[in-house]
Amino acid sequence: MRKHASILQTLNIDHGELDACKRRQRMKVGFIGLGAMGSAMASNLVAAGYNVTVWNRSEAATEKLASLGAKVARTPDRAVQGDVLHSMLANDQSVRAVILDSGLLDTMDPGTVHINHATISIELVRQLAEEHAKRGLEYVAAPVFGRPDVAAAGKLNVLAAGKASAIEKVRPLLDVLASKVWPMGDTPERANAVKLAGNFMIVAAIESMAEASVLTQAYGVSAADFIELISTTLFASPVYQGYGKAMAEQRFTPPGFALPLGLKDVMLAQEAAHAEQVPMPLAGVLRDSLLEALADGAEGMDLSALARVSARRANLDRRNKS
Amino acid sequence: MRKHASILQTLNIDHGELDACKRRQRMKVGFIGLGAMGSAMASNLVAAGYNVTVWNRSEAATEKLASLGAKVARTPDRAVQGDVLHSMLANDQSVRAVILDSGLLDTMDPGTVHINHATISIELVRQLAEEHAKRGLEYVAAPVFGRPDVAAAGKLNVLAAGKASAIEKVRPLLDVLASKVWPMGDTPERANAVKLAGNFMIVAAIESMAEASVLTQAYGVSAADFIELISTTLFASPVYQGYGKAMAEQRFTPPGFALPLGLKDVMLAQEAAHAEQVPMPLAGVLRDSLLEALADGAEGMDLSALARVSARRANLDRRNKS
Amino acid sequence: MRKHASILQTLNIDHGELDACKRRQRMKVGFIGLGAMGSAMASNLVAAGYNVTVWNRSEAATEKLASLGAKVARTPDRAVQGDVLHSMLANDQSVRAVILDSGLLDTMDPGTVHINHATISIELVRQLAEEHAKRGLEYVAAPVFGRPDVAAAGKLNVLAAGKASAIEKVRPLLDVLASKVWPMGDTPERANAVKLAGNFMIVAAIESMAEASVLTQAYGVSAADFIELISTTLFASPVYQGYGKAMAEQRFTPPGFALPLGLKDVMLAQEAAHAEQVPMPLAGVLRDSLLEALADGAEGMDLSALARVSARRANLDRRNKS
Amino acid sequence: MRKHASILQTLNIDHGELDACKRRQRMKVGFIGLGAMGSAMASNLVAAGYNVTVWNRSEAATEKLASLGAKVARTPDRAVQGDVLHSMLANDQSVRAVILDSGLLDTMDPGTVHINHATISIELVRQLAEEHAKRGLEYVAAPVFGRPDVAAAGKLNVLAAGKASAIEKVRPLLDVLASKVWPMGDTPERANAVKLAGNFMIVAAIESMAEASVLTQAYGVSAADFIELISTTLFASPVYQGYGKAMAEQRFTPPGFALPLGLKDVMLAQEAAHAEQVPMPLAGVLRDSLLEALADGAEGMDLSALARVSARRANLDRRNKS
Repeated sequence: MRKHASILQTLNIDHGELDACKRRQRMKVGFIGLGAMGSAMASNLVAAGYNVTVWNRSEAATEKLASLGAKVARTPDRAVQGDVLHSMLANDQSVRAVILDSGLLDTMDPGTVHINHATISIELVRQLAEEHAKRGLEYVAAPVFGRPDVAAAGKLNVLAAGKASAIEKVRPLLDVLASKVWPMGDTPERANAVKLAGNFMIVAAIESMAEASVLTQAYGVSAADFIELISTTLFASPVYQGYGKAMAEQRFTPPGFALPLGLKDVMLAQEAAHAEQVPMPLAGVLRDSLLEALADGAEGMDLSALARVSARRANLDRRNKS
Repeated sequence: MRKHASILQTLNIDHGELDACKRRQRMKVGFIGLGAMGSAMASNLVAAGYNVTVWNRSEAATEKLASLGAKVARTPDRAVQGDVLHSMLANDQSVRAVILDSGLLDTMDPGTVHINHATISIELVRQLAEEHAKRGLEYVAAPVFGRPDVAAAGKLNVLAAGKASAIEKVRPLLDVLASKVWPMGDTPERANAVKLAGNFMIVAAIESMAEASVLTQAYGVSAADFIELISTTLFASPVYQGYGKAMAEQRFTPPGFALPLGLKDVMLAQEAAHAEQVPMPLAGVLRDSLLEALADGAEGMDLSALARVSARRANLDRRNKS
Repeated sequence: MRKHASILQTLNIDHGELDACKRRQRMKVGFIGLGAMGSAMASNLVAAGYNVTVWNRSEAATEKLASLGAKVARTPDRAVQGDVLHSMLANDQSVRAVILDSGLLDTMDPGTVHINHATISIELVRQLAEEHAKRGLEYVAAPVFGRPDVAAAGKLNVLAAGKASAIEKVRPLLDVLASKVWPMGDTPERANAVKLAGNFMIVAAIESMAEASVLTQAYGVSAADFIELISTTLFASPVYQGYGKAMAEQRFTPPGFALPLGLKDVMLAQEAAHAEQVPMPLAGVLRDSLLEALADGAEGMDLSALARVSARRANLDRRNKS
Repeated sequence: MRKHASILQTLNIDHGELDACKRRQRMKVGFIGLGAMGSAMASNLVAAGYNVTVWNRSEAATEKLASLGAKVARTPDRAVQGDVLHSMLANDQSVRAVILDSGLLDTMDPGTVHINHATISIELVRQLAEEHAKRGLEYVAAPVFGRPDVAAAGKLNVLAAGKASAIEKVRPLLDVLASKVWPMGDTPERANAVKLAGNFMIVAAIESMAEASVLTQAYGVSAADFIELISTTLFASPVYQGYGKAMAEQRFTPPGFALPLGLKDVMLAQEAAHAEQVPMPLAGVLRDSLLEALADGAEGMDLSALARVSARRANLDRRNKS
């Protein structure tokens, strides 16, 4: 024993770290949904030493994870037989299909904690919470702020709402993914309401930048000049800088935040607002601007393509031509 | 001469600095309009060594400047007999009254540069530029971003549009006021269009924060929690942090940016947009929210009082009571 | 035979009428949904001589029909065993529950024509059309314009979309209900799109009247004077006159067109618009005004209670008090 | 005398009529502004037997009136030397130029009644009322509803606000122009507020028809079919029928109500609303839709060209092409 200790000392490993490492290896973690976000998040969990089993609808996405050391499940039910399940699916439809309608919850052991990172409707969160509770499963709503590169760096802002004991249990996992974990109380839907409100604000910021930029262009100021000014002074923050750059460069593909997903989120915010009788006049404007962008062919573009709508409304081209 | 040089060396003063200092003392600068902003700006010019003569409608505001070493003019025409005139008046009405209708321009020497820092309408800027040109006066539009505390620290963002030679001449003065000077070309109205667009974006940011915050409050998340989250992550920039703090604390007086002035600026942005046929749907919403705030008694409040409008629309109180 | 004819002559009955009467008695008609509208419509069908069997969730509503000569079914499936089924249910939820999820369609004979008068979503219409087609049933979308008193007078405007042969077959029934039948082609959803567009226009008309009336009140013109003027001149039509009267008299209960149903219809119009990427900026404003009305307690009021929202926004009371 | 009476009897003329006729000939009436509306109105006054002197900026428009028997004044001051002055000028600018800045009021005899039919800003009405009062002149605000053909038929709806005695004096003249005169009290601006509110409602009706029509077109219903339905049922009134016809036929020139004038009136309504702190969310939407129409080249078109904006937003053409 002494000898063992001295070897550890020689190797510069302390007992605490070793124990934590072993705990991680013993913790079996499932991860469902390996899009750009999910893949980056699951990779970090593997890298942190967790025993991770992944599943994804299309198998291609699982290869990278397998190469990092994750187990790959052929069916979702084989990915959920651990202590914790993460899921990062695209929208209400996917979550309903994979989690609810498939009967997956019936295959999970009581006590399992399901951490749902998806941006989904309040209505679905409530239904999920209920269905988990019925089966003795824990449900933690944990939507995240951050793009894939932020996820890859383990620097997400992770919201977390659910039973305190469940959050405590999975806290080390969330810490792997996050620069900061933001507890939102024990009602899961709160985390989702905050996520929808945040995404609404992102779209509002982009629309305001689009309208302001077209106004100043009409007076002869280039989009690049205007956006450099406002995004390094009053609005020196990630949202304005990221989307502003795309606007200044008129580069709307490939999408960072796909415009149709932005519309989906604004509509989910409107639904959430409707359920609680909260008028949100800006949301109505955003919905229509996004719809107008889609009608004009922005299906595959980034949210910053809202700039195209503002420019078209003002018929900005006629000025540039003359 | 050698002796003189060695004294300077002993005193650790170099020739360049001395020359610059003398140049400043020789440059006669007028400053009209000593509100919170103008007072801070003029003080910095005095501190930098310029020979400053100030005028203000109410004399009380001139005392501080006098104590710092400025000359005080009894009438505006005595303040404009230098090389450069700064003016920082509240709105179109004041600028018309003090600068145009008073005949002040006729008392100025040809070649004088007038630096107008006010946030005014495009229409008035065009008229001012024309009236200055007629008389051989130089007009530089130089609206600023920053509150009084930023002005006091000499850290404003100063836009500058006008003839290049005129801007070059007054550049040292602007550098005293600014953390950065943003040249906007030789058409004065461009600087004002950018200023109006920026203020429009500020109001849009506040309205979006107000709506989002009421949505999340309806789901049980406190305004303080929500605003801390978004203003330290996605929107970690001065505008969201400053107004967000006021919202979180429900502290709307005294105003930093008075709500009626915010409405004035949104309406000026709408006017500028109208003149160039630029639809701005968000601006329409902001105008009505601000008007609703005024109708509900926010005359003396800060722009962040838009949060009261959102809360009233959703009848948020009934929830808090129950 | 001759003798028979002479008796008919004596009785002033001609063969054509008699035949039509007999045809009606032979035609078995089901009617599901006896709210204010459905009850008035079914009554007219009975009065016209059809052999009508009615069903309603709450039995109370069936008594009046029974007293007029209708048969009353205990369960929906007993009401649908005729040649034609009318249904007039309140919303998507009721239609799904009673028609789709109940298995009712499986109990109907191939060839039966189902005339659905409900104002429902495009999505549900498409699903209904498909489910009927699968089973060899005919689906005619026949939403109506008109309030209960108009229905009672048999003066509805009835839209009708579906297979031409099916519409022809039921045309005599529609004629009983309508002052005019408006054929909308063979795609059922078209009739529903028109109905939603019409209801959207009704709400827009009311909101515009509310805003205009508050503006003129702020200048000292009474709501009654303003509304009399516009609703007997420029806008001398049923919608402005009906809702205008309620506004002028500040009488918002009992509802003619319940405000929550108006919100439902505006949201269905928005959904229909979203599916086809049609921006509708007015619809966004209407949604929020209606939501604001509900947040302020207008749950049981008429659509004309939008006037309360406009008045509150302008804080009109402070003027009236002073 | 007896003989005279018997002649009158023979000629079927009664004393009352003769006296009224003589009174009219004795009343000297000035009329300034002979656009499409003014020309029709002045013609009716001449036809009714009044002694009318007209003035118009461009002389061409005076010829028709001269041929009907009006006197033509070379300068405005010669047109105002009667008992009553009508003016029907295009906008604030014209009214300011012709009535206020020209010194015209100083040439009028105290007691003269000026009936201003123009649709102008509240602010200008207040100023006009004050300037008239100072000089002992009576000011009656009498904006009208109705297009040129209605004016020609003497069937306008004429609002009238001003001192009761002044209105009484000119009532016979207004009756010549109107199917109905609507007294609006003694504060002139009230009549203008009502006029602006009415025009706002007209634009709102058109925009709602445009949006609804594009929605139904997206579902395959022709604009003609939809507009026939709604404008002969729910909205069977002049506004919907007139503008609806233009929309159905896609015929936007020549303008009945020119789109730029519609924008002017919406903006005047917004100004009036701003002055009294009345939020009008629909007005904001209308302003932007009109601006978008102008940016797309609708300068010379009718208000019904709002349909083009709705269609472009939804990119309706792609459907029609496919």
